[in-house]
Amino acid sequence: MIIDLISDTVTKPTKEMLAAMMNAEVGDDVFKMDPTVNALQEKAAKLFGMEDALFFPSGTMANQAAIKLHTQPGDLVICDKYAHIYNYESGGVAFNSGVTCKLVDGNRGMFTANQMEEMAAVQPEIYLPYTKLVCIENTTNKGGGACWDFEEIKKIQKVAKENNLGFHLDGARLFNALVAKNETPKQYGALFDTISICLSKGLGAPIGSLLLGSKKDIKHALRLRKLLGGGMRQVGFLAAAGIYALDNHVERLAEDHQKAKEIGAVLATVSYVTKVEPIETNIVIFYVDKKIGDTNFIKKMETKNILLTPMGEGKIRIVTHIDYTNEMHEILLKELKNFN
Amino acid sequence: MIIDLISDTVTKPTKEMLAAMMNAEVGDDVFKMDPTVNALQEKAAKLFGMEDALFFPSGTMANQAAIKLHTQPGDLVICDKYAHIYNYESGGVAFNSGVTCKLVDGNRGMFTANQMEEMAAVQPEIYLPYTKLVCIENTTNKGGGACWDFEEIKKIQKVAKENNLGFHLDGARLFNALVAKNETPKQYGALFDTISICLSKGLGAPIGSLLLGSKKDIKHALRLRKLLGGGMRQVGFLAAAGIYALDNHVERLAEDHQKAKEIGAVLATVSYVTKVEPIETNIVIFYVDKKIGDTNFIKKMETKNILLTPMGEGKIRIVTHIDYTNEMHEILLKELKNFN
Amino acid sequence: MIIDLISDTVTKPTKEMLAAMMNAEVGDDVFKMDPTVNALQEKAAKLFGMEDALFFPSGTMANQAAIKLHTQPGDLVICDKYAHIYNYESGGVAFNSGVTCKLVDGNRGMFTANQMEEMAAVQPEIYLPYTKLVCIENTTNKGGGACWDFEEIKKIQKVAKENNLGFHLDGARLFNALVAKNETPKQYGALFDTISICLSKGLGAPIGSLLLGSKKDIKHALRLRKLLGGGMRQVGFLAAAGIYALDNHVERLAEDHQKAKEIGAVLATVSYVTKVEPIETNIVIFYVDKKIGDTNFIKKMETKNILLTPMGEGKIRIVTHIDYTNEMHEILLKELKNFN
Amino acid sequence: MIIDLISDTVTKPTKEMLAAMMNAEVGDDVFKMDPTVNALQEKAAKLFGMEDALFFPSGTMANQAAIKLHTQPGDLVICDKYAHIYNYESGGVAFNSGVTCKLVDGNRGMFTANQMEEMAAVQPEIYLPYTKLVCIENTTNKGGGACWDFEEIKKIQKVAKENNLGFHLDGARLFNALVAKNETPKQYGALFDTISICLSKGLGAPIGSLLLGSKKDIKHALRLRKLLGGGMRQVGFLAAAGIYALDNHVERLAEDHQKAKEIGAVLATVSYVTKVEPIETNIVIFYVDKKIGDTNFIKKMETKNILLTPMGEGKIRIVTHIDYTNEMHEILLKELKNFN
Repeated sequence: MIIDLISDTVTKPTKEMLAAMMNAEVGDDVFKMDPTVNALQEKAAKLFGMEDALFFPSGTMANQAAIKLHTQPGDLVICDKYAHIYNYESGGVAFNSGVTCKLVDGNRGMFTANQMEEMAAVQPEIYLPYTKLVCIENTTNKGGGACWDFEEIKKIQKVAKENNLGFHLDGARLFNALVAKNETPKQYGALFDTISICLSKGLGAPIGSLLLGSKKDIKHALRLRKLLGGGMRQVGFLAAAGIYALDNHVERLAEDHQKAKEIGAVLATVSYVTKVEPIETNIVIFYVDKKIGDTNFIKKMETKNILLTPMGEGKIRIVTHIDYTNEMHEILLKELKNFN
Repeated sequence: MIIDLISDTVTKPTKEMLAAMMNAEVGDDVFKMDPTVNALQEKAAKLFGMEDALFFPSGTMANQAAIKLHTQPGDLVICDKYAHIYNYESGGVAFNSGVTCKLVDGNRGMFTANQMEEMAAVQPEIYLPYTKLVCIENTTNKGGGACWDFEEIKKIQKVAKENNLGFHLDGARLFNALVAKNETPKQYGALFDTISICLSKGLGAPIGSLLLGSKKDIKHALRLRKLLGGGMRQVGFLAAAGIYALDNHVERLAEDHQKAKEIGAVLATVSYVTKVEPIETNIVIFYVDKKIGDTNFIKKMETKNILLTPMGEGKIRIVTHIDYTNEMHEILLKELKNFN
Repeated sequence: MIIDLISDTVTKPTKEMLAAMMNAEVGDDVFKMDPTVNALQEKAAKLFGMEDALFFPSGTMANQAAIKLHTQPGDLVICDKYAHIYNYESGGVAFNSGVTCKLVDGNRGMFTANQMEEMAAVQPEIYLPYTKLVCIENTTNKGGGACWDFEEIKKIQKVAKENNLGFHLDGARLFNALVAKNETPKQYGALFDTISICLSKGLGAPIGSLLLGSKKDIKHALRLRKLLGGGMRQVGFLAAAGIYALDNHVERLAEDHQKAKEIGAVLATVSYVTKVEPIETNIVIFYVDKKIGDTNFIKKMETKNILLTPMGEGKIRIVTHIDYTNEMHEILLKELKNFN
Repeated sequence: MIIDLISDTVTKPTKEMLAAMMNAEVGDDVFKMDPTVNALQEKAAKLFGMEDALFFPSGTMANQAAIKLHTQPGDLVICDKYAHIYNYESGGVAFNSGVTCKLVDGNRGMFTANQMEEMAAVQPEIYLPYTKLVCIENTTNKGGGACWDFEEIKKIQKVAKENNLGFHLDGARLFNALVAKNETPKQYGALFDTISICLSKGLGAPIGSLLLGSKKDIKHALRLRKLLGGGMRQVGFLAAAGIYALDNHVERLAEDHQKAKEIGAVLATVSYVTKVEPIETNIVIFYVDKKIGDTNFIKKMETKNILLTPMGEGKIRIVTHIDYTNEMHEILLKELKNFN
């Protein structure tokens, strides 16, 4: 048995999800004729109280299309120095949109309205790049699954709008935040111009993300999806998994969070761990002491069929998810306690 | 019963293909850990005698990545004026790669080595764009499923190589050509630097294309796929359909071709059709007289649940495929004969 | 004495123009504080009856900025297959703007409204590039200095506007057309959204072009000029030459045209020339027979200190200009007559 | 009399420089036939001990071409958070090259080899942008004319080369550093792949920058200059000013530095100034107290015909230069002392 804690993207469909996929009614989504995709898009738009939604093969493409929607080549996007769009999308913001990220020096991937206010208000001198978009990520991946304070998001939205900036949410793990903070999709739908949500992380679907926005923006996004090569055919098989996930896999994220906290509690007691980052959702980030070393620690755990991720700078990441069972959890806690 | 002849992309998996999909062993393909995707890629590479292969969410993305592989922003790509990459990929060659198409005035989407020789040999003056790539499409979509003469392809390859140009095959419907001309994948693998093949057209899989090439090019393509947002997770469900299609749906393309020819034979006899393009594979392109008009003809057929595509300039397209049954065929032939 | 007929770009300032340059009042044009540049821009805008104008280091940059002004990455620009922007700007339309040229198969670089009407009216399907701009070049460089029929331009403008397309004039040699056809700048200013004019071709200034347009477009162009690296400092030295040229070198273009026609008349009588293109302004394009060959002919003339340009496909180009004196003209005519 | 201390770009040619310009022998530099440009390029290359050089209309274009030379779309460029290429080139690195700046949190625009080592050594995971270039600016503009420690540059170069990164110097004010630190061009030529130097800042020429590098890189840069629209015609007038500047205006930069230090000394004694940044060359950056306020201070000085630049965040910038005379200097010092 492999205990794969590398990411919540490694999950496989449950038997019930697979049945939903197998029974999906499908059509050619390039011609917008796949009924299951259309149903998923409507469902998601309604859930967030937004006008429209569009299925994407990946969260990266959904984010990239959103950035292109809101910007022109040469513009600036304000985001945190930990932002996924800056760190983990291969440089795509410059490749696909010709834009530059203006980084805010936030805390665990989150910043304040105050921190971005001066950036947002820069006068458009011809020698300066023009700021056009603010992008935040909730929960933050590199920040260890941290959840933003919703009141701060509202303040940031106010600054963005006062300066005519677009406001995009990279919600790859937004449902983790909603469950952890007892918030609703509609709260977010009301604040953002565009939101990407991922079906293949905590929600457990095999493939797919959605971009939510106004009818006008989603029409434009459809065009951009085609340009980027994201137009696919009988997508209903994947959309069916997404519908199943929205119906059945949201509330259960609390279990992943509970397990993550229990892992953190153990790590806080063992001598070889020098620091554990605050745990709010399903991500645990911790540091091992130099005697052991992160690379060595990860290798040793691998010999025990436990897979972890190095984050650089001595950090190690654990991500809990639907395929991480109670049985695995007991084994892991034991191995962490007994490690030497 | 809807008789959908709009494209061979509208097909739905057979029961057997669906079973193969649902029984697929899957993993996270972003980490290259999906065994079924890996098996499909190996199978396809071997089939063409090429070093490596990579799964893409669409043929458009496979082509776009190939073009980027072979070019720098500002370069020229030689292709036919009917080429799919020029006409039907939303302007992506300039959007994604910053390159310009240099069009050859071919015949039904096909040109000769002679026609492209002067273009290929242009001296690299600084005020001229540099030619870097020759791209051909076989069969030609806008050319009505026409098959290239393999001897001509060899001559074009020679010119390309003499001028240090890359050579890419848009093989969205290559298997139709192989079956129609009794050619082998390895013949093509030996000539081209990169080949895209589509699993979701005549082969009947729901989603996906493959790019074939050298280990070095495919490694680069993996990076480009990520940049374009084409990295997906449990792709094995889709790859399983692809494996099934390669094993079971290639030879049967002959049936689609036979039906297309029979449709053409009927069209050649009815008074309202002014011209039928030569039919070599599964695409029929014909013109109706002005009294009826293409738009009107298509609308009337739609009332009989028969769906066709307008091609502009008075042309109408029919595409046969695996979901176009013998029963549908009889109905269509009857309707075409009796149309007035 | 070298008789340089390679281009009208090779001219050197006259003594009077040099004096104007030397006495120019200058300032830092990046801060818009160069009075001579400002005066030139106002003068040119007024001349064409357009709102504003901007100095550029080259006609290529003026055209590239105009194309970017009117388009988004992925769009199409309609132009003639001979267009300078397509053939001689290094592939810049795709490099700088991410757009594709949709070529019209015109006559000597000129097409009709009829020819471009269908292209202009293409429905914006998501898989199609969107047409956004029509660009014409007057006189046509590759077309041998041909002048457009103004009535046809009006028809093209009508089609462009009916389809919400921008309309740009590459007026690198527009003054040649104005003089040859007895037209006025204001006629053109009234029809086009943007016009580029070149000061360093027939007008004889050493460096510079202007882009003309609305206040809004020119404000945007100022930003694009900075992005492309075209913001320069004490530009007044160059602008002074431009002012001098507009005041003193327009009418005299008729002399260049007269000489070109006289050259053409001689070429029409010599046995080794197989064809002379129609001559309307200062460009002569002709073909020599295969016994001699274009490369050989050019080399032989070079030994006589006469410099000509090969145009490919057996064509040779001669361009007359302000530095091509009567004395040189007599020598050239004699050499052409006596060549064997 | 206006005392313009906004930038060292506002200078006008001296009588001698103007004479050199007007006596320049010129030709068409697009065809590489301008002897004065060629002489300048050779002179500069020799001065730095580098293979070749190329004239550009602006330092921005020289930098942008250099960045494109060393990178592919999607790549990362390591630079300081104060870097001109990041802050003051309108977002051009993403617009022109599709690359992203990876910012180092340096001190007055300068960082250490230690600070950039981890960035430089990032493994090329497909989801990460690839680092390809390190770019430093000497002296630093936003850093107040600070000069890098040459030993640190050597260490950075070592790290760059160990990681196969290009190494570019934005030397817009490099001659100020050379004079201040008693260094030589050849020291720099030996370390960097490419160097841009500006002729129109402290050196006092009206227009122009040079890019220095290997023959191969400069050949590529020539192509990029054409693509960006930087190919100009009779450039010799500008190049002559550049030659004159290199021959006559380098040593005298010490006077500008001396005056800047004297200004700083006065500012250090007046009560309304809260801080003066260290002064190493010709740039003075200081802060006025909140009672007065930077905007107000600049406005009041403007009423006395003294022009200064606001730098944001309460900072004010003074730049000394060749047109800032001893008489002006006395007036300025008096005004600063007596300000209230």
